[in-house]
Amino acid sequence: MSAERATEAGLVRLARRLAARSGGTGVRVGIGDDCAVLDPTPGAALIATTDLLLEDVHFRRRWAEPADIGWKAMAVNLSDIASMGAEPRWALVALACPAGTRMEEVEAFYAGALALAERHGVALVGGDTSSSPHGWLVNVTVLGETPAPPLLRSTARPGDVVAVTGPLGRAAAGLALLERRAAPRGLNPGILADVTAAHLRPRPRLEEAGWLARAGGVTAMMDLSDGLATDLGRLAAESGVGACVELERLPVDAATRAVARAVGGDATAWATGGGEDYELLLTCAPAEVERLRAGLPAKAGARLSVVGAVVPGPGVRWLDSRGREVAVAAGFEHLSSRTAAGARR
Amino acid sequence: MSAERATEAGLVRLARRLAARSGGTGVRVGIGDDCAVLDPTPGAALIATTDLLLEDVHFRRRWAEPADIGWKAMAVNLSDIASMGAEPRWALVALACPAGTRMEEVEAFYAGALALAERHGVALVGGDTSSSPHGWLVNVTVLGETPAPPLLRSTARPGDVVAVTGPLGRAAAGLALLERRAAPRGLNPGILADVTAAHLRPRPRLEEAGWLARAGGVTAMMDLSDGLATDLGRLAAESGVGACVELERLPVDAATRAVARAVGGDATAWATGGGEDYELLLTCAPAEVERLRAGLPAKAGARLSVVGAVVPGPGVRWLDSRGREVAVAAGFEHLSSRTAAGARR
Repeated sequence: MSAERATEAGLVRLARRLAARSGGTGVRVGIGDDCAVLDPTPGAALIATTDLLLEDVHFRRRWAEPADIGWKAMAVNLSDIASMGAEPRWALVALACPAGTRMEEVEAFYAGALALAERHGVALVGGDTSSSPHGWLVNVTVLGETPAPPLLRSTARPGDVVAVTGPLGRAAAGLALLERRAAPRGLNPGILADVTAAHLRPRPRLEEAGWLARAGGVTAMMDLSDGLATDLGRLAAESGVGACVELERLPVDAATRAVARAVGGDATAWATGGGEDYELLLTCAPAEVERLRAGLPAKAGARLSVVGAVVPGPGVRWLDSRGREVAVAAGFEHLSSRTAAGARR
Repeated sequence: MSAERATEAGLVRLARRLAARSGGTGVRVGIGDDCAVLDPTPGAALIATTDLLLEDVHFRRRWAEPADIGWKAMAVNLSDIASMGAEPRWALVALACPAGTRMEEVEAFYAGALALAERHGVALVGGDTSSSPHGWLVNVTVLGETPAPPLLRSTARPGDVVAVTGPLGRAAAGLALLERRAAPRGLNPGILADVTAAHLRPRPRLEEAGWLARAGGVTAMMDLSDGLATDLGRLAAESGVGACVELERLPVDAATRAVARAVGGDATAWATGGGEDYELLLTCAPAEVERLRAGLPAKAGARLSVVGAVVPGPGVRWLDSRGREVAVAAGFEHLSSRTAAGARR
């Protein structure tokens, strides 16, 4: 059966079977009716986010397997939920793939998405399927909840520090390798696997975000999807403040530096402009840093690094090791440059 | 400014400006942060649906303007919400369009979507934007609520009648005209405008569905997106029953018959297999029909027509005017045949 061509009826049966296994709570009616019927937690705010992933914009089939596509489409949405300090609960997955796609590929896609969803207690409750005239495309919507006020990007205050929850530039290093036809000579295979996984299978910082939200003291938070330069610019603009970042303080790990050396890339540019690291970007009072750093769950490389400060003026300034202002690589815009590393909100 | 190329930043600004105007209630944080933050109505069930519309699968740019695409992407989701007897509240719109798309086209797309959303009190609260390597594509997610138990497709009972809320085959007649390079000779321009609008700008039966849900007596309901044959088959299968339809009772209006004559089409086949009429398909006890017919709001051609009966066995049987069982045109499957009239759940 697994080599059969995907049909819409087959896809719905498959999604339904997988959804029934996916667990989660608060699902009165799941896949199989016109809509999902869900039971929200009384008193909790409802959190909603949606993200589109397109072949040859956000990924290439040459290096992204269906399971990777499913994982990442789920991950980028879960990361948005994490950025509010909320708990993800329900997912709707819309998938279009080309005529001739095999059921086993579609099953692998759902398996990738559900492997991550189940880890975080998220139920697959709905979706849509279609043929696609050109390549794979996925839209995932995730609904979450939070009993506490969500953390926003619009509430940073001058005097706060700017911090991130883990290393930057890893996903860009991974993309640089994935986009090459052959691995560069001399690069450790472990490093190659490590950074390409960072690109293909990002891990949303849900546990860390939940802890930070409960710990208190975080004044603003968002996730790093489009790179620090773009995303910190957004956080500053939404908060009506400016920010100042010391490039030397950016957490760039040894693997990312090794890849930069091997391919002639710029690790700092990847850290500021590469995007898709899905670390949390947050602000807090300087006095809170040690408490938050000490308490942050330290899984999967999470570590709170202060990279700069919130200042009154508009805009983000970048300082080199001598304190001189420099220009940095920023993210890209989808509609003006086609790229395999897409801009995400 | 309107002739400028669409950029991601421009799209986000545009969506935000339009969202701020779009009204709706229960929106604590809308477009501009990582997620929307919404305040559900205490005690209400949350209803969620998502639908993908792709160029050259669900529409062609040759005959669908950006405003039509926006309208229809919203309409098909609102129709899903209607089918549960629920009230739509919030929408997330993900849009990808080709490089070179002008801001005025994107603005027209949102205007089309919001014209319908605003009519039903639905707020635009989030979304995503991307470039597309191949054509326009849209994913809309709509969240609704209902304080009462939602109407399902899985609860029809043998002995019930099968009824629809309006004429069938109109959207297929419209598609048949849109797909032609030139209008057929002798067709009244009013009829042409009427049926093409049925395809391009379907009107979700929200008011009618809300009335039916409150009136009581409806045992099962869904919306007709993929055609009566496919959708009644689904309703029957989900309910563990069969159905029997008398073809003579299908409500096919004069405009649809006129188009069928003009283009050599089969109006009955359009009614059973054309899809995209977005009328409600429902079941109820025979004794309830007159009360429901008399009370149903009679706007935009809505009229309750009994077309058949729910029976014990599995499957749907179709009877001609002499009571003989006949085969009918059914809907299509996306992944096995590429068509401009897409299958919708």
